[in-house]
Amino acid sequence: MYSTNDQSKSRLDLIRQKLYIIIYGVNTPAGKAFDIGLLIVILLSVFTIMAETVEGIDHRFHDELIVLEWIFTIVFTIEYLTRIFVSKKPFRYIFSFYGIIDLLSILPMFFSLFLVGSHILSSFRILRLLRLFRVFRLIEFMEESSRLKVALLASRAKIMVFLYTVMIISILIGTLMYYIEGPENGFTSIPKSVFYTIVTLTTVGYGDMVPTTALGQFFSMVLMVIGYGIIAVPTGIVGVEIAREAGKKLNKGNENNIQHTNLNGIVCAHCNKEGHRTDADYCYSCGHFLNS
Amino acid sequence: MYSTNDQSKSRLDLIRQKLYIIIYGVNTPAGKAFDIGLLIVILLSVFTIMAETVEGIDHRFHDELIVLEWIFTIVFTIEYLTRIFVSKKPFRYIFSFYGIIDLLSILPMFFSLFLVGSHILSSFRILRLLRLFRVFRLIEFMEESSRLKVALLASRAKIMVFLYTVMIISILIGTLMYYIEGPENGFTSIPKSVFYTIVTLTTVGYGDMVPTTALGQFFSMVLMVIGYGIIAVPTGIVGVEIAREAGKKLNKGNENNIQHTNLNGIVCAHCNKEGHRTDADYCYSCGHFLNS
Amino acid sequence: MYSTNDQSKSRLDLIRQKLYIIIYGVNTPAGKAFDIGLLIVILLSVFTIMAETVEGIDHRFHDELIVLEWIFTIVFTIEYLTRIFVSKKPFRYIFSFYGIIDLLSILPMFFSLFLVGSHILSSFRILRLLRLFRVFRLIEFMEESSRLKVALLASRAKIMVFLYTVMIISILIGTLMYYIEGPENGFTSIPKSVFYTIVTLTTVGYGDMVPTTALGQFFSMVLMVIGYGIIAVPTGIVGVEIAREAGKKLNKGNENNIQHTNLNGIVCAHCNKEGHRTDADYCYSCGHFLNS
Amino acid sequence: MYSTNDQSKSRLDLIRQKLYIIIYGVNTPAGKAFDIGLLIVILLSVFTIMAETVEGIDHRFHDELIVLEWIFTIVFTIEYLTRIFVSKKPFRYIFSFYGIIDLLSILPMFFSLFLVGSHILSSFRILRLLRLFRVFRLIEFMEESSRLKVALLASRAKIMVFLYTVMIISILIGTLMYYIEGPENGFTSIPKSVFYTIVTLTTVGYGDMVPTTALGQFFSMVLMVIGYGIIAVPTGIVGVEIAREAGKKLNKGNENNIQHTNLNGIVCAHCNKEGHRTDADYCYSCGHFLNS
Repeated sequence: MYSTNDQSKSRLDLIRQKLYIIIYGVNTPAGKAFDIGLLIVILLSVFTIMAETVEGIDHRFHDELIVLEWIFTIVFTIEYLTRIFVSKKPFRYIFSFYGIIDLLSILPMFFSLFLVGSHILSSFRILRLLRLFRVFRLIEFMEESSRLKVALLASRAKIMVFLYTVMIISILIGTLMYYIEGPENGFTSIPKSVFYTIVTLTTVGYGDMVPTTALGQFFSMVLMVIGYGIIAVPTGIVGVEIAREAGKKLNKGNENNIQHTNLNGIVCAHCNKEGHRTDADYCYSCGHFLNS
Repeated sequence: MYSTNDQSKSRLDLIRQKLYIIIYGVNTPAGKAFDIGLLIVILLSVFTIMAETVEGIDHRFHDELIVLEWIFTIVFTIEYLTRIFVSKKPFRYIFSFYGIIDLLSILPMFFSLFLVGSHILSSFRILRLLRLFRVFRLIEFMEESSRLKVALLASRAKIMVFLYTVMIISILIGTLMYYIEGPENGFTSIPKSVFYTIVTLTTVGYGDMVPTTALGQFFSMVLMVIGYGIIAVPTGIVGVEIAREAGKKLNKGNENNIQHTNLNGIVCAHCNKEGHRTDADYCYSCGHFLNS
Repeated sequence: MYSTNDQSKSRLDLIRQKLYIIIYGVNTPAGKAFDIGLLIVILLSVFTIMAETVEGIDHRFHDELIVLEWIFTIVFTIEYLTRIFVSKKPFRYIFSFYGIIDLLSILPMFFSLFLVGSHILSSFRILRLLRLFRVFRLIEFMEESSRLKVALLASRAKIMVFLYTVMIISILIGTLMYYIEGPENGFTSIPKSVFYTIVTLTTVGYGDMVPTTALGQFFSMVLMVIGYGIIAVPTGIVGVEIAREAGKKLNKGNENNIQHTNLNGIVCAHCNKEGHRTDADYCYSCGHFLNS
Repeated sequence: MYSTNDQSKSRLDLIRQKLYIIIYGVNTPAGKAFDIGLLIVILLSVFTIMAETVEGIDHRFHDELIVLEWIFTIVFTIEYLTRIFVSKKPFRYIFSFYGIIDLLSILPMFFSLFLVGSHILSSFRILRLLRLFRVFRLIEFMEESSRLKVALLASRAKIMVFLYTVMIISILIGTLMYYIEGPENGFTSIPKSVFYTIVTLTTVGYGDMVPTTALGQFFSMVLMVIGYGIIAVPTGIVGVEIAREAGKKLNKGNENNIQHTNLNGIVCAHCNKEGHRTDADYCYSCGHFLNS
C-alpha cells in the first residue's frame, strides 16, 4: 500500500523522505553517520565557544575561533532549515522543545553582529546533545535512559518529601548558625548562612565560611553527620526503584514483549509525537513512516 | 444520627465546624486553598525576615520589610486565635507541638516592640512548614513520608551503633591528629581536632585546617578512605529498610487494606489525636467529624 | 549443683561474685546502673582532657580540671583493681585487649607526675567506650552491632580489592598530577600529589592544593567523576551484605533460634572468652556462671 | 603423555619450566613467595621514587635513594629478561599489556643516564601491581575482582547515559555560572566555570572558586542538591548489579560449577591467553601446563 503511495509522490517528496530518514533515522548507516557527525560538531562548536572565553587562547586565536564559530553556525542553520523542510507539519517542529533549542543555538551568533559578545550565549547549544542520547543508539541504551527516567518519576513523591525536609532543615539551621556565629564571623546574613548550611549538609564544604565559635562548630558537626546520613535516603529510594525496574525487565523478558514501554525518543516527522516503541516502523499517532 | 446532632447545634458551632474543616481539612477545595495559601504566606514571611538580614536589601527597603512582617504576623495571629476558637479542647491545641510552634512564630514580632532586633527570631516560623507536608496532599505523599519515618525508626538501633562508632573514631583520631600536628599547624586543641576529623570523615573538607606533617597527612588519608567506606553503612541500612517497606507495601496491596498504617498527620479538632487513616472521615478515637 | 557450690564459698568469694555481676552484668539493675555510670564517667573524663587543651578554658580553670582528672583517674584505678580482683584468672584479664586499654587509660596521669603534659594521652581512654556498646544493652542492639560486623567481614575480600584499586589509582594519578602541575603550583612532591588525589577521589576537597593548569584541571575532573562513581562500590557491597543479613534474620525468625549467632560482647570472668549467646547464663567454654 | 614429553625435554627446558612455575604460578610455595616478594619490591621501589621528590628527604639521602633505585631497576630488569626467557612465544609477552608495562617500568632509569630527572617516570611502575591482584591469591579474591568487573560492565550502558547527562549538566550550569558570576568573581572562563560545576556537583568543593552573587549562590545550592541526589544513580546501578551477581553466585553454588566464569588473570606462558578457570591446571587454549 505504502509503496504505491510512494510512487505517486513528487520528486521533492522523495528527497524529503530520504533526508528525513537521514536526520531522524537511527537504523540506516546514513542516519547513524549523521547522528555521530552532529554529536561531534555540537561538541566542537561548544568547545570553540568555551575556548573563546579563555583569555590566553582568545588572545592568540581570536579570528580563527570566530571563523570556526561562523562555520558551525552556518552548518546548524542549514540543518535547522532542512529539519523544517522535511517536517510535514513544520510549525509543530518549530514550536517543539527541540525546535526551540535548535533555533536558540543559532540565533546568538546572528545577534552578535549587532550586539558584541552575545555569541557566547551559543554555548547553550550544548542542550542539543539532549536529543542525541540515541547516538549511543543501541536499543538497550534507550531503555536504560528511560528506565532511569521511570525510576526517578516513580520516586517523585519521595523526592519531593526529601527536598521539602532538606529545605526546612537548611533554613532552620541556617538561622541558628546566623545567631550563633553572627556577621563578625562571616555569617553576614541568613541567606548566606543557609548557603553555608546547604554547602555543609551536602558535604560539599567550600570552606569560604567556617564556624569559629565552639557552639557553631558543634552544630556544624551535627549537621555534617545528618548530611552524611541523609544522603542514604535518595540513594535508598533510587536504588529500590532501579532494583524494581530491573526486576520488572527480568520478568518481562520471560513473557512476550508486547506491553513493553517504548520511550525511544524518536520523533515522528509528521506529527512530532514522541514515545514510540523502539521497534516501531510507523507512528502510533498518525501512521506516518518512522525513521527508515 | 450525626445530622440530627448538627441541626441542634448553635449557629456558632456551625461556623466553628466550617472553619475547622477549612483549617484542618484536606479534601475540600476551601481546605486545599487554605493549605496552599498558608504554605505561601509562611515562605514569604520567612523570606522577608531573611531579606532583612541582607544589608544591601535592608538598607533600601527597611520600612517596607517591617510593614510586610507586621502584616504576616497579624495574619498568623488571626490564624492562631481561629485555631484556638475552632478546637473543642483549646488547651490541648495550645500545648501541643504545633500549638507551641504557632505561638512562637508570632511572639518575637510583638517582643520586638520592646526589644529591638528580636523579631529576627521569627524566622523559626519555618518550622510551621512541618505541618504542611500534607500540602502535597495526595494520599501517596503522606504514605511516602510515613514510610520514610518508619524506615528510619526501624533502623534506629543500627543508627545508634553507627553514631556511637563515629563518635569513638572521631575523638580517637582527633586526639591523634592533635599530637601529630600540634597547635603550630592549626590544630590548637583536641575539640578543634575532633572538628577537623568529623569534617574529613564526612567528606565535607572545608580546608580551614589541613595537615602539614607527613604523618598527619597519612592518617588523614586513612580517615578519608574510612569515611568514604563508612558512608556505605547508613546507605545500606536505610536502603534495606526502604526496600523492606516497599516490599510490604507491595504485599499489602494484594490483601485488603484494613491493617494499613495511617500516619496521616491530620489532627482531630475534638481530641487532638493524630494518626488517622488517610481516608478516614471520622476520628477513630472520639467519633468527631474529620476534615470534611 | 551450683548453689551448694556457692554455699561452700568463702565470704570473699561471695563479694567477688557480687562485684563480678555488677561489673560484667547487664541484666541486673546494679549492672545496668554501673554500665551507664561508667559511660558517663568515661565521657566526662574525656571531655575534661579535651577542655584542658582549649587555651581559654585551661587558662581559667586549670586547677579545677587537673583535680577533676585526678578524681576520674582514681575512680578508674579502683575500677581496674576491682576488675583484677573479681577475675578468677587475673592475668588473662590484664593481658586481654580491654585489660590493656583499661591500664593505658590510667597510666598517663601517673606518668604526668614525672613528665609534664603526658596526661593528655589519657584521652585515648575513649577506647574504653568500645566495651560499652552493651550500654545500649538491648539484645537487639548487640545483634545489630554484630550484624554490621558480620556484613563487613563477609565483604572483606571485596573491600581489599577495592582498597588495592584505590591505592593504584591514587599513586598513578598522583604521579601524573605531579608532572602536570609541578612544584610551582603547590604539588611539591609525589606524596603530596597522592594526598591531593585521595582528597579529591574521596570528594573531601580541602582546597589547599588546587590544579591551575588546564590539563591538571581536566584530570582532576575525571578523578572527581571516578570518585563519585567509585563510592557506589562500597555502598553496593555493604548494602548487599546488610540485605543478606537482614534476609537471614527474617528466615531465622521463622525457625527456632537455636543456631542464632550470639556475639554478645560479654566476657567470661573465669576464662575471659567472648562470643557468648546473648541469653547465655554459663560460659560456653568453662561453664562458669555469666553476668547474673 | 605429558610426563614422557617432559623427559624428552632438554635441561634448559626444565629450568624454563621451573622458572615459569615460580613466576606465573600461584599455588606452589615458591610461586607464592615470588608474588609477595614482587609486591613488596614494587611498593618499595615506588616509595623510593616518591621519597626522592620530597625535598627534605632527597637533600639528606639523595645518593642512597639513587643506589636503591638502581638496585630495584636491576632486579626488575633481571625479572623482565627471565619472563622473556621462560615464555615460549617471547614476542607475545613483550607486546602484551603487562609486557609493555614491565618494560616501561625499567626504561626511565636507563634513560636517566642521558636525561637527568627522567627516572622519576619510573613511579608509573605502580601499574605493575595490577598483575598482582592474585597476591591476595585466594580463589575467592579473583572472583570478587571479576564479579566487580562484570557488575561494572553490565552497567556500562547506564554509566554512559549517566556520564553523558553529567557532561550536559556541567557545561550548561558552567556556562550559566560564567554569565552570573563573571570574571570579576573568579569565574574567568567557561572551562573554569565548568571545573567549578564539576567540583560542586561531585560534592568535592575545593572552595578556590565560590559564588558571591545571590543568584550564583542560589544556582550553586540547586547544583549541590542535584549532585547530592545524582550520587544515588551510580550507587543504585552498581548496587543492583552487585546484588544480581551475588544472587547468581548463590544460585550457581547450588548447581555444579561447570559454567562458572573464570577470569582468573593467570596468563598462559605458551600462548599468553588469559581467562583460565581459577582451578585450571592446563591452558584451555594450547594445553600447556599452567602455573604449577
